[in-house]
Amino acid sequence: MKTLYLIGMGPGSPEYLTMQAINALKQVNVFFMLEKEGRGKAELLEMRQTILTHYLGNTGYRVVMATSPARAKTVDYQNDVQVWHDEKRALFAQLVADELTDGQIGAFLLWGDPSLYDQTVSLIADLTAHSAGQLEFTIIPGITSIQVLTAKHKIPLNRVGESITITTGRHVETCDPTEINNAVVMLDYNASFQRFTGQNMDVYWGGYLGCADEVLMAGAIDEVRDDLLRIKSQVRDEKGWLMDIYLLRRRTNSAE
Amino acid sequence: MKTLYLIGMGPGSPEYLTMQAINALKQVNVFFMLEKEGRGKAELLEMRQTILTHYLGNTGYRVVMATSPARAKTVDYQNDVQVWHDEKRALFAQLVADELTDGQIGAFLLWGDPSLYDQTVSLIADLTAHSAGQLEFTIIPGITSIQVLTAKHKIPLNRVGESITITTGRHVETCDPTEINNAVVMLDYNASFQRFTGQNMDVYWGGYLGCADEVLMAGAIDEVRDDLLRIKSQVRDEKGWLMDIYLLRRRTNSAE
Repeated sequence: MKTLYLIGMGPGSPEYLTMQAINALKQVNVFFMLEKEGRGKAELLEMRQTILTHYLGNTGYRVVMATSPARAKTVDYQNDVQVWHDEKRALFAQLVADELTDGQIGAFLLWGDPSLYDQTVSLIADLTAHSAGQLEFTIIPGITSIQVLTAKHKIPLNRVGESITITTGRHVETCDPTEINNAVVMLDYNASFQRFTGQNMDVYWGGYLGCADEVLMAGAIDEVRDDLLRIKSQVRDEKGWLMDIYLLRRRTNSAE
Repeated sequence: MKTLYLIGMGPGSPEYLTMQAINALKQVNVFFMLEKEGRGKAELLEMRQTILTHYLGNTGYRVVMATSPARAKTVDYQNDVQVWHDEKRALFAQLVADELTDGQIGAFLLWGDPSLYDQTVSLIADLTAHSAGQLEFTIIPGITSIQVLTAKHKIPLNRVGESITITTGRHVETCDPTEINNAVVMLDYNASFQRFTGQNMDVYWGGYLGCADEVLMAGAIDEVRDDLLRIKSQVRDEKGWLMDIYLLRRRTNSAE
């Protein structure tokens, strides 16, 4: 039997790890570090290494690096995702076969929480289901960038009794803007908050949340839109990459 | 200047606290422990005390207990909430005035994450805004029961590219069932998942998540509904109270 831990590392800084995650780190034999090729790769790998060094020092574990396959971007999104997942699943299977011996524990340090917009959980669940009892896995929750966003802006995620939507830039880019009342938008590469101009909406934005370079901005979209576009462009130029999320909130006249 | 920390304690067990939360605990002079009267009160206070003892021992801080006002339940929900919030805000103001001296740090240990279905953030923000610079506050994120739910069921929160809704039993009780595709339901006192019978929906349910008495159940609603009703009733009878949440997910025939 081999074991995999999918460990939520939070948004970057070692302080966001839970005691459960730290205790799990101490049992791990091999850490698998996967990142996509491209901008930010070195820095993102370094943040993971900093966490390991902070809690484990530099000995007693192995680190195995691999390049995570990238998703092709053709017109057939569903097929692109399917191919990408097949490639990732095959890579995970190979790492488990080649790098772990029986009785050992391997781990993936995943950004934020393993369950949110990360398909590692379902791919590892597939592998486990087909392992004839030779592979098991455990998920260890982590703080998401959503929680850091609301903490830093000092706002609740929802107003009284209100629902919250967590969605993607891909969705917000094309949806009917009036259907959005209180939504966290992740993975937005096209600044789709601009679509909500003139709609009585506030935006609470954060870039590199939980990291040393964290940037925050908030206000009525009509007022801050241009500043936000400028800041996004500026920090992306400076660092070469940008991880950001934001909350869109429609103003109301209700009790809250 | 007085300072308040709103600390996300996660779902109950000390292991869910982050290093950031643990480091914050060590700076606190006074912990405010508020619980509503009613079933579970003693046990919920004990879990908080266990966290303090685990990380701080029994000395070096004060604990101030107070009974949190309950919301009246008349036909006028908005007014009930307004009155309830006014009472809570007044209680917070009194605690800060009476129990903290200048330069001291007070803290609330909040279940899960301070930003999710807990109005402490907005009430303390109100107090701070009206304190003429004499009060400040910091939010420290915590692991939510949602994250424990998906970790224990070993499922992603969303399928590929999919949005997630976080909502209340109050909403699910009356909404059009076809509008729900992937939703976490919190604060459901009426087992509203029954409304989704015959709709090709799965439910992933957890009670007392992250606590010693944790119970899990999952399956097609059509198949597990009666068992789930029976288990909910059984554990509620045994313990005298129940904290539970669940995820509703519509089956699809897509690539995922």
